[in-house]
Amino acid sequence: MITRADVDAAAIRIGGRVRRTPVLEVADSGATMFKLEQLQHTGTFKARGALNRILAASESGELTGAGVVTASGGNAGIAVAHAAAQLGVPAEIYVPVISSPAKVRRLHELGAVVVQVGNEFAEAYEAARKRVADSGATFCHPYDQPDMAAGAGTLALELWEQTGGFDTVLVAVGGGGLLAGVAAALEGQARTVGVEPTGARALHDALAAGRPVDVPVSGVAADALGARRVGDIAFEVARRTGVRSLLVEDADLIAARRHLWDHYRIVVEHSAAAAMAALTSGAYQPAGGERVAVVLCGANTDPSDLV
Amino acid sequence: MITRADVDAAAIRIGGRVRRTPVLEVADSGATMFKLEQLQHTGTFKARGALNRILAASESGELTGAGVVTASGGNAGIAVAHAAAQLGVPAEIYVPVISSPAKVRRLHELGAVVVQVGNEFAEAYEAARKRVADSGATFCHPYDQPDMAAGAGTLALELWEQTGGFDTVLVAVGGGGLLAGVAAALEGQARTVGVEPTGARALHDALAAGRPVDVPVSGVAADALGARRVGDIAFEVARRTGVRSLLVEDADLIAARRHLWDHYRIVVEHSAAAAMAALTSGAYQPAGGERVAVVLCGANTDPSDLV
Repeated sequence: MITRADVDAAAIRIGGRVRRTPVLEVADSGATMFKLEQLQHTGTFKARGALNRILAASESGELTGAGVVTASGGNAGIAVAHAAAQLGVPAEIYVPVISSPAKVRRLHELGAVVVQVGNEFAEAYEAARKRVADSGATFCHPYDQPDMAAGAGTLALELWEQTGGFDTVLVAVGGGGLLAGVAAALEGQARTVGVEPTGARALHDALAAGRPVDVPVSGVAADALGARRVGDIAFEVARRTGVRSLLVEDADLIAARRHLWDHYRIVVEHSAAAAMAALTSGAYQPAGGERVAVVLCGANTDPSDLV
Repeated sequence: MITRADVDAAAIRIGGRVRRTPVLEVADSGATMFKLEQLQHTGTFKARGALNRILAASESGELTGAGVVTASGGNAGIAVAHAAAQLGVPAEIYVPVISSPAKVRRLHELGAVVVQVGNEFAEAYEAARKRVADSGATFCHPYDQPDMAAGAGTLALELWEQTGGFDTVLVAVGGGGLLAGVAAALEGQARTVGVEPTGARALHDALAAGRPVDVPVSGVAADALGARRVGDIAFEVARRTGVRSLLVEDADLIAARRHLWDHYRIVVEHSAAAAMAALTSGAYQPAGGERVAVVLCGANTDPSDLV
């Protein structure tokens, strides 16, 4: 469980080490403002959580010379490698053997040790946990850890301060680290609405079932949003704060991503277009005068189809 | 000739009709801040000047039912078509017959009449001037008109207000409309430095010759920066305010454009990468502690090479 106090502490901890990403205020497309978090270090909001996790572990004495370990072939892995490099801490990133050479190269460029093991994420995850148990390294969970989620939530504090407030914020949900952080940061101030593709509906189905449940994963955003099960932290914060999950189709993600390029010259990855897709698809329909913030949370994408 | 007063008047005139584009404050790459003007309506700063030109013509009584005319197959044409549509004014855009079908289609989508004439820009320009003489329409020069330049300069007023000030601003120069507006807006407050590719050095050679002179035009940014001769307004403002022009190579533009994507997930067109290229190439070397603003002024580009 995390609260606003955790996010406040994270903001102090990582201040000066992350980009204060800008806000584009708009008056069209149903949105009132875009938080341009895709301009963050490493191209996604994950940089915030990774820095907060490692700094907090250092403060508490948890961090040893064995450094940090994570399991992620995607944005979380890149963010942990980046944060570790920035802080001078060794990092080992566990990824499945099927990971793309480009992603592995990027992790190497960031100075991380890359361990390729297993054919699925679950195997890489188990190997990473075993390595942590053996070496005493600090484990960085890709999303379901209080410091990861609270770090992500710092973008909501910035957004509130930059804009003077809003009624509603739309956030893409995968494992729910960003959602948990944002909802905790804004509890009592604004409504947080989660958006998930129908092919990766971990929060939606958890809220329906009353507990986190396994879901099948597919679709154009599966690489970033395809958690099989929503994190416990996200589930608890969503229940506490009354977060809903809206569903959008893959076609909505594709259209929203194109809309952001055509109308704003903003490039995001398919997963990060989910929040915008809730508006452009009509899944979320703002009331008259409602101030709606859209978090654009990542741009680790191939833009070549945006011609 | 334009002054700060013209830019102030433009800001009042177009306020609420243009996007207040955000600023990303950074602490690396030699820059201190990026003005993200590529997120402007139509994808470039040209939207500001076009709106200011048409609104000013309306105020002064110059605008008739014949509407507006411009000659441009590029960003200025799109901006004039957009501004005219927004203001409910007919627009005729003169372009060479060799213009790309995609550009012509975009002008049509904006509701403009597109007149394709001649094999070169100069012929389209002459036809547009003749049309203006015949019809009484208002001519919108792509860059060398006081209201176009003053409108462009409004981004510098915003930038100053958004950041609390800086020492130096780097600006790409083609015909010099943006440069003139920015230098006039910041006269006495900050140093404006122009940046041109070696293949489109109209301001550089004009300053060397003591008057605007024709230059040969080539290179990756020729579509947007390839004015054969710098505008009289830009030349006068540059001389009055002590603007220098730095030269960069095409390879520098390409590298700077890629740097902005790789490190910031910002997409710009090659021309708009010129200001950044001055830093990444070393053509401009900031002093210790110098606050340097980089204007990113356009993103009408094919991003498919940024994989």
